[in-house]
Amino acid sequence: MAGLHIFGVTGLPEITAGADLPLLISEAASAMGSPLQSGDIVVITSKIVSKAEGRVVALDTIEPSPFAREWAEKWEKEPAVIELVLREARRVVRQVGPVLITETKHGFVCANSGVDQSSSGGQGLAVLLPEDPDASARRYRERFRELGLDIAVIISDTFGRPWREGQTDVAIGIAGMQPITSYIGQVDPHGHEFRVQALCTADELASAAELVKGNISRIPVAVVRGYPWEPDETATMRTVIRESERDLFR
Amino acid sequence: MAGLHIFGVTGLPEITAGADLPLLISEAASAMGSPLQSGDIVVITSKIVSKAEGRVVALDTIEPSPFAREWAEKWEKEPAVIELVLREARRVVRQVGPVLITETKHGFVCANSGVDQSSSGGQGLAVLLPEDPDASARRYRERFRELGLDIAVIISDTFGRPWREGQTDVAIGIAGMQPITSYIGQVDPHGHEFRVQALCTADELASAAELVKGNISRIPVAVVRGYPWEPDETATMRTVIRESERDLFR
Repeated sequence: MAGLHIFGVTGLPEITAGADLPLLISEAASAMGSPLQSGDIVVITSKIVSKAEGRVVALDTIEPSPFAREWAEKWEKEPAVIELVLREARRVVRQVGPVLITETKHGFVCANSGVDQSSSGGQGLAVLLPEDPDASARRYRERFRELGLDIAVIISDTFGRPWREGQTDVAIGIAGMQPITSYIGQVDPHGHEFRVQALCTADELASAAELVKGNISRIPVAVVRGYPWEPDETATMRTVIRESERDLFR
Repeated sequence: MAGLHIFGVTGLPEITAGADLPLLISEAASAMGSPLQSGDIVVITSKIVSKAEGRVVALDTIEPSPFAREWAEKWEKEPAVIELVLREARRVVRQVGPVLITETKHGFVCANSGVDQSSSGGQGLAVLLPEDPDASARRYRERFRELGLDIAVIISDTFGRPWREGQTDVAIGIAGMQPITSYIGQVDPHGHEFRVQALCTADELASAAELVKGNISRIPVAVVRGYPWEPDETATMRTVIRESERDLFR
């Protein structure tokens, strides 16, 4: 039947520093009876990328600044975590009540610079976002190629957004396919330009993948099969980050 | 194979006022050889809902206010369209250069109150968002039930967002399932509360559906099969609209 098929990859081991994620994912998919195929898009939750890259920090090694300490104590947060949030940030976008929304060094706007203290693999640890998620995705795409597979890779995280309750999964790293599908300049049968000019397909793929991952069931990888993509080695999430002069909500 | 299957419903006729969308969708899916099944989620692009509900306006019947006229002329827009945008709005959120971001009467924040001049079925016409998309979705769910099908219904539209380029499809109306999946209060195996507290599943489903619709190929309906949902007749998108006191980006 035509259309998309999306499934979670179960049975992955606990991921530790140095893990060969593409190999582990490929083996786990095969063990499920659903081996990866060229043309698949593999959507990987950033947390296991971070773990594989050793982006896990022991909080007792972090000396909080007076600013981090004061604010953390006021809102009953862990000072070392707030210190990490600020170190990972390029800019604080909003700091209101207990909410701290930052622009990460990559340019993503999200809560707490994406620093994650939950399910980090142990008490007293925090997981940071990957240092360069596009580079991670490109490395994985290359590794899949070594395994004989032409796979597009998306690294995803779970972000909030203004105006709407509930978070959604979005893309933070990509390799092999462009994140945005542009219709700019195309006209409909009535001669009007399309109201929709560009879709962020990468974010839609990340959201679709979340539906089979479930944040509770802790399935960190999903496969999207049947989505047509044009191989493109220049892909980067930088094209999704809005430039500040176009940004009305800084 | 487990997981989700998502496919577009092709072969729908041009939708006009009074169309029985659930019947047309059900017949088109059957004609494709993929009949709808109870448990499916049907994601319908708002534009055909609007057309079925007669929310199409002839621009030459609209008298623009001086404010609408002046701004439209400055930015080379159609004054009657700008007048409709303002009439559909509860509040202008940002008006910068040619960009007009409003809060609709439903409470959604989007460009131009969702008023669509493109592919509206003819020159000189504009399509407004459905008046009450939740009510439309409930009516469709009820109609599917008359056809012997237990179907959750999502009505979707394509919105931009701050900070990130590219639009994505989101839900604007829902029936049969809650739009948000909450993990609040649940703890991970290490005793931390989940960083992710609530996911807007409805928006993720709308985004997933867009991947098979394509805005160009003009497939206005998609079916998501295999996603487990709990029937709930109290569902409404109002729970997704952030209350103003929690909104940092008004």
